[in-house]
Amino acid sequence: MIGPELEDLIKRLTRLPGLGPRSARRLALTLLEKKESMLLPLAHSMTRAADNIKPCHACGNLDSNDPCRLCSDPTRDQKSICVVQQISDLWALERTRSFTGRYHILGGVLSALDGVRPQDLRLSQLIERIETDQVSEVILALSATVDGQTTAHYIADALKGSAVTITRLAHGVPIGGELDYLDEGTLVTALNSRSGI
Amino acid sequence: MIGPELEDLIKRLTRLPGLGPRSARRLALTLLEKKESMLLPLAHSMTRAADNIKPCHACGNLDSNDPCRLCSDPTRDQKSICVVQQISDLWALERTRSFTGRYHILGGVLSALDGVRPQDLRLSQLIERIETDQVSEVILALSATVDGQTTAHYIADALKGSAVTITRLAHGVPIGGELDYLDEGTLVTALNSRSGI
Repeated sequence: MIGPELEDLIKRLTRLPGLGPRSARRLALTLLEKKESMLLPLAHSMTRAADNIKPCHACGNLDSNDPCRLCSDPTRDQKSICVVQQISDLWALERTRSFTGRYHILGGVLSALDGVRPQDLRLSQLIERIETDQVSEVILALSATVDGQTTAHYIADALKGSAVTITRLAHGVPIGGELDYLDEGTLVTALNSRSGI
Repeated sequence: MIGPELEDLIKRLTRLPGLGPRSARRLALTLLEKKESMLLPLAHSMTRAADNIKPCHACGNLDSNDPCRLCSDPTRDQKSICVVQQISDLWALERTRSFTGRYHILGGVLSALDGVRPQDLRLSQLIERIETDQVSEVILALSATVDGQTTAHYIADALKGSAVTITRLAHGVPIGGELDYLDEGTLVTALNSRSGI
């Protein structure tokens, strides 16, 4: 009924998170109907992103520069590192405009269920940064889930010997909630009333 | 905060139907995290689709061949044409495996509100096909909306002089419903008990 190119496009769109077979079919038709204004620019944008965007070796953020523009920004305090689970959490915190330090993307949280072990996270890079940059404060901005808090305690334990102050976001983060879904007001409050761990 | 390539990608993803800013951001991150397995193949698939898929000059279907594989299939009866509003309606009918004739995509329905006039639809091509292919039956498989039925009557009027039999889908299509959303059982019933107009 449909050609291999269209079938392939629909199949690949169906695999995207949040799209089912019907919405993928509709999307494919919309894209093909707006070939010049949507399909080709999007394909070009994707190729450009794939070619240019890479993880920052220091913090793990995605950017076209390495180190990323947050790590290479001299106005940002390199003595203060905010540890987050994933990049969307970094974006959520950046939208609050309340934090002027730097970030460290863990790439996940410890999870016995999902088989995520300490060596699967960017923990050694964090410890290295703390030593190299003489970091004075590490803010653990992890989700208030069991796995997130387990990870926070694991990191606090791992850094116990060093001179760094370890803080975590205030209990303003709803229990069981994920950082990326919070409103900015709650995030500002949680950031401002962060407490020792 | 984010580079121009990533910003451009998120902006273009946000424009897709069904995606908001947050889901576009999440999608962009997922794509970049799975660069080799998702992002690049999808970009390649899009470019390939844009380069190869074009409308069939006869029926208006999208395919890599022109005429499309439905129009060039010798086992399909060219004396019977099923007129649909859009390609997703053709797909919905094809999924029922009940129709062995050919299709004609109108590209819309008449609408005073949206300013769609007869000359905006692929009506002259339909009339030409009916003459050239000596079509004996035209099935108007248009949505059971006011605009859809207005269009059906307009086409029936336009074809009044010719020898062609004009039928429409049976009233089994729920009033106000759109063809693309119907279950296949209802579509089979509607196709089998089609009636003269």
